[in-house]
Amino acid sequence: MSIELVSSTKSFDGFQQRYRHKSSTLNCSMVFSIFLPQDAEGNTQRKYPVVYWLSGLTCTDENFSQKAGAQRVAAELGIILVIPDTSPRGDDVADDPGYDLGQGAGFYVNATQEPWKQHYQMYDYVVDELPSLVELHFPINGRRGICGHSMGGHGALVIGLRNPKRYQSISAFSPICNPIACPWGEKALGTYLGADPKSWEPYDATVLMGRAVEKTPILVSQGEQDEFLEEQLRPHSLQTAAEASDYPLRIEHHAGYDHSYYFIASFIEEHLRFHADSLLSRHIY
Amino acid sequence: MSIELVSSTKSFDGFQQRYRHKSSTLNCSMVFSIFLPQDAEGNTQRKYPVVYWLSGLTCTDENFSQKAGAQRVAAELGIILVIPDTSPRGDDVADDPGYDLGQGAGFYVNATQEPWKQHYQMYDYVVDELPSLVELHFPINGRRGICGHSMGGHGALVIGLRNPKRYQSISAFSPICNPIACPWGEKALGTYLGADPKSWEPYDATVLMGRAVEKTPILVSQGEQDEFLEEQLRPHSLQTAAEASDYPLRIEHHAGYDHSYYFIASFIEEHLRFHADSLLSRHIY
Repeated sequence: MSIELVSSTKSFDGFQQRYRHKSSTLNCSMVFSIFLPQDAEGNTQRKYPVVYWLSGLTCTDENFSQKAGAQRVAAELGIILVIPDTSPRGDDVADDPGYDLGQGAGFYVNATQEPWKQHYQMYDYVVDELPSLVELHFPINGRRGICGHSMGGHGALVIGLRNPKRYQSISAFSPICNPIACPWGEKALGTYLGADPKSWEPYDATVLMGRAVEKTPILVSQGEQDEFLEEQLRPHSLQTAAEASDYPLRIEHHAGYDHSYYFIASFIEEHLRFHADSLLSRHIY
Repeated sequence: MSIELVSSTKSFDGFQQRYRHKSSTLNCSMVFSIFLPQDAEGNTQRKYPVVYWLSGLTCTDENFSQKAGAQRVAAELGIILVIPDTSPRGDDVADDPGYDLGQGAGFYVNATQEPWKQHYQMYDYVVDELPSLVELHFPINGRRGICGHSMGGHGALVIGLRNPKRYQSISAFSPICNPIACPWGEKALGTYLGADPKSWEPYDATVLMGRAVEKTPILVSQGEQDEFLEEQLRPHSLQTAAEASDYPLRIEHHAGYDHSYYFIASFIEEHLRFHADSLLSRHIY
């Protein structure tokens, strides 16, 4: 469970850092990013809650770090941000020429099919290995939020819904809400999990929301000019499931916004404050 | 003086846009970015001040737009941001294999040497052509600030110091303060302007500050862990010139910060508020 510092850059009185580690879950070397608010590095007194950010198709751990402007708000609130990569990586890791499959497109599932299953175990990596790793090495108090964008919004919803005791807050930007019924999801889930759609359901936020027992409030932000809205994202399906199961879901539709990081940057402050409402309410020092 | 919309993305209730135009000064096609606060697009009632942002080596008009987080503050203050590219561009534009010369490295000078002088007229482009163009097409009130980073910080200081009537506010991040006496500057100025160092002096902020008559207050932010601090940036030379000429220069040295956009993002709000103090004080509607 060792980590190796790749880079450390001061940001808003804290540090934006990258670390490399050997992932036993993914069976390869991985890099993640972390933002530590002021005084968090090397601090043994105060411990902080974490918000995990899951990125979308083609992203690495750096897109959110560079483009979302989240550090300003995380620094003010006293929240650590942890940003994993979007898939296993490496020359010996299976890949696909499509941007929506293989490296950069892990879809936060545990693959069961060849040749993917040797490395593509992103669900377990994000839920278990990465939290264990960062909670060992950084001053974290065990309170966790999860958030993401597009494919990563799907990941955040699925992981949050399936693990209500592990995550005290859940939100998403422009998530793939119903991957069992959209082209991106059908391609990825069919490839990683096999042809039986029943095996896809544990990775479908709309299905999971309809069956939820413990109901952590969820915030979703969606741009109305998002080029993937109707075909790929399908927030209306999630809304319908929430209404049927009386789930506390708030979907905010924003006129004029698209699928880009400019949309995320415009509303990341609202999302981090939403997480802070849950994560900081029983602050542990 | 026509412009062609390349892209338009909603950001903080305003629009981040890119436009292409034929530059008669640079003798090539150019793209610039612009941020228009809420209601600025198509508005014929209210007019806004502008802050020009000049980027550093290797950058295009997009680095600042994507990484600095400036839109949030510009939206709040009601300031238009205009971000030019860092050099002329195109297959028929002279170039050099080095990252610090040729395309991406125009140094905001008017070249006098072959083969550069046909296109590399970035000083005139930024001072004259681009303001004329944007003031024709956007609701701008004629009040201008100028700011930049590294090579662009050099550009902002030089252009601001040489044109005190055109720019009401000047600031810079990690500027090349004394290019006639550092490797980046000696290489670029010697190439674009020829071997005589006297011809370089109109593009040296330290020289210009020592001779300044009209003295617009200047803010400079500099990271103390900047890897280029001593060899290339030389803020102490600028400080000495300011003291000798009683110039109102404030250099803020920030412990732990490096040369990256994480540094810019951390202090862009302070800079834009510094510009707003001058640009909004006699607001013209």
